[in-house]
Amino acid sequence: MSLLVVGSVAYDAVETPFGKCEQMLGGSAAHFSISASYFTDVRIVGVVGGDFRDEERSVLNSHKINIDDLELVPDGKTFRWFGRYDYDLNVAHTLDTHLNVFADFKPKLSDASKKSRLLFLGNIQPDLQREVREQMPGAELVALDTMNLWIENTKESLLKTIRGVDVVIINDAEARQLTEIPNLIKAARTILSWGPKALIVKRGEYGAALFTADSYFAIPAYPLESVFDPTGAGDTFAGGFMGYLSSQEKLDEAAMRRAMIFGSVMASFNVEEFGTDRVRRLTHDEINQRFRSFKQMTNFEEIPFERAVQAAK
Amino acid sequence: MSLLVVGSVAYDAVETPFGKCEQMLGGSAAHFSISASYFTDVRIVGVVGGDFRDEERSVLNSHKINIDDLELVPDGKTFRWFGRYDYDLNVAHTLDTHLNVFADFKPKLSDASKKSRLLFLGNIQPDLQREVREQMPGAELVALDTMNLWIENTKESLLKTIRGVDVVIINDAEARQLTEIPNLIKAARTILSWGPKALIVKRGEYGAALFTADSYFAIPAYPLESVFDPTGAGDTFAGGFMGYLSSQEKLDEAAMRRAMIFGSVMASFNVEEFGTDRVRRLTHDEINQRFRSFKQMTNFEEIPFERAVQAAK
Repeated sequence: MSLLVVGSVAYDAVETPFGKCEQMLGGSAAHFSISASYFTDVRIVGVVGGDFRDEERSVLNSHKINIDDLELVPDGKTFRWFGRYDYDLNVAHTLDTHLNVFADFKPKLSDASKKSRLLFLGNIQPDLQREVREQMPGAELVALDTMNLWIENTKESLLKTIRGVDVVIINDAEARQLTEIPNLIKAARTILSWGPKALIVKRGEYGAALFTADSYFAIPAYPLESVFDPTGAGDTFAGGFMGYLSSQEKLDEAAMRRAMIFGSVMASFNVEEFGTDRVRRLTHDEINQRFRSFKQMTNFEEIPFERAVQAAK
Repeated sequence: MSLLVVGSVAYDAVETPFGKCEQMLGGSAAHFSISASYFTDVRIVGVVGGDFRDEERSVLNSHKINIDDLELVPDGKTFRWFGRYDYDLNVAHTLDTHLNVFADFKPKLSDASKKSRLLFLGNIQPDLQREVREQMPGAELVALDTMNLWIENTKESLLKTIRGVDVVIINDAEARQLTEIPNLIKAARTILSWGPKALIVKRGEYGAALFTADSYFAIPAYPLESVFDPTGAGDTFAGGFMGYLSSQEKLDEAAMRRAMIFGSVMASFNVEEFGTDRVRRLTHDEINQRFRSFKQMTNFEEIPFERAVQAAK
């Protein structure tokens, strides 16, 4: 039961119509690992600068996240992202990005990390993702996230990386951009033809879908009357998905379907407050309660039409 | 087991990137009734001109749709809609609308029509919808569709009509426009506060959602690799939904959930070919098969996290 994530650990500055936060813990590996920590043992491979505070370190520690491979560059500064959301909270406007120590990041995996059962390649340069993946030939399941930047600038490398993973987790715009196919179902078939066993497409307020060679599974998002800060929702989803899978013996489709629900549950909590504020103080009861709501939200009796008519007569 | 629909019977001229059709049977009442005819006895209240051909009449007849209240204006012309879709098939571009006999349409209900158990008020001027509704005080369930035109130009009348129906069936943009609330969940609560017991929000390729005072049900759309002509998909959904309900003794939430699936099934067939071409030659086996696919697409085991962990150990 162990899960490794490689990705960014960052300080985010975020403005939404509802408030403003000058500096909060962010980055794909931070959101992912806090979310996954409710289900399994997580390790981070990443890098921070000398400005990374004990406060954030203790958030990770309190969730028993192993940060032995979180490299410290004492005279560097931690990656910073400055973003703004308007009333359409689906669209993040990047105001500024300071890569800082992340510019020269070379993931270094300790032997302990290399033995992790599952691996999540957070949204970083695809060459780096592949280097990490190649150091873990024994991983039972490897998933990958990416973004428009890498699709536009390093597509060949990204395709090579995708060929070597089991699960691709992206949003619908990225699936279309990656394949240049407007129809999502066709786009999904194309991505699966490159090698991955499964594709997860995140659709924001419309939920998420899981495609495999011979099946399709789709779930709605948890209905929220207000979304406060969507930053990190995708990584929090991935953390719930991979964290739950990591807790399971069998990584079959039934487990992946439940993992989709747990991913959505975690993402729905994430957007309720700034950064990781809500997710970091969850309880298992809260998580399970929302998991059960998903069953209530999607359940219907399977009574074909003729039988229904007979029953009504 | 009887269902009345009031709405348009039209000739549509449609261009899509995949083909062109100069004149085909269309209109809300036509799409609705052909879809509903697979589940129940349907009657149309509407109007056509002297140009309405036996060919279309026999399509309705062959589906046992009662057209006694489909008024004929011999020296008038049938309502015509000219539309175009580009590659984004979610957006219909209206090129021209000839109201013709529909401009002076006054729905006239025979006594037989007034005795229908269920009523669907297709997308027509809300004053007319209300007139029809008021002639059927004994209807067990009344549903309504509308569109941006009536929200913009006759909002007060529309609100009055909504207060008198049981179910509102609209798309997400209309729900937001009607309430001026961007968050769909809040918008839905607001619409329910006006009186209807249920609100159905159609979300195109993302599926549909059913809101009641104390529950939420959401389903994906059937995954289609190609959409040929979306014209009438909303009315075909409503026809499947109301048609199925009409076949049921109990109009409770469990029945409404199944009706949502049958509505989605019928809409998914509708978009596969021009106009009503695909829906008019369906079989019950095809309908039930796709109904079962919806179960497969949405089903997951309800195992809360702790139990899952125990099971995995």
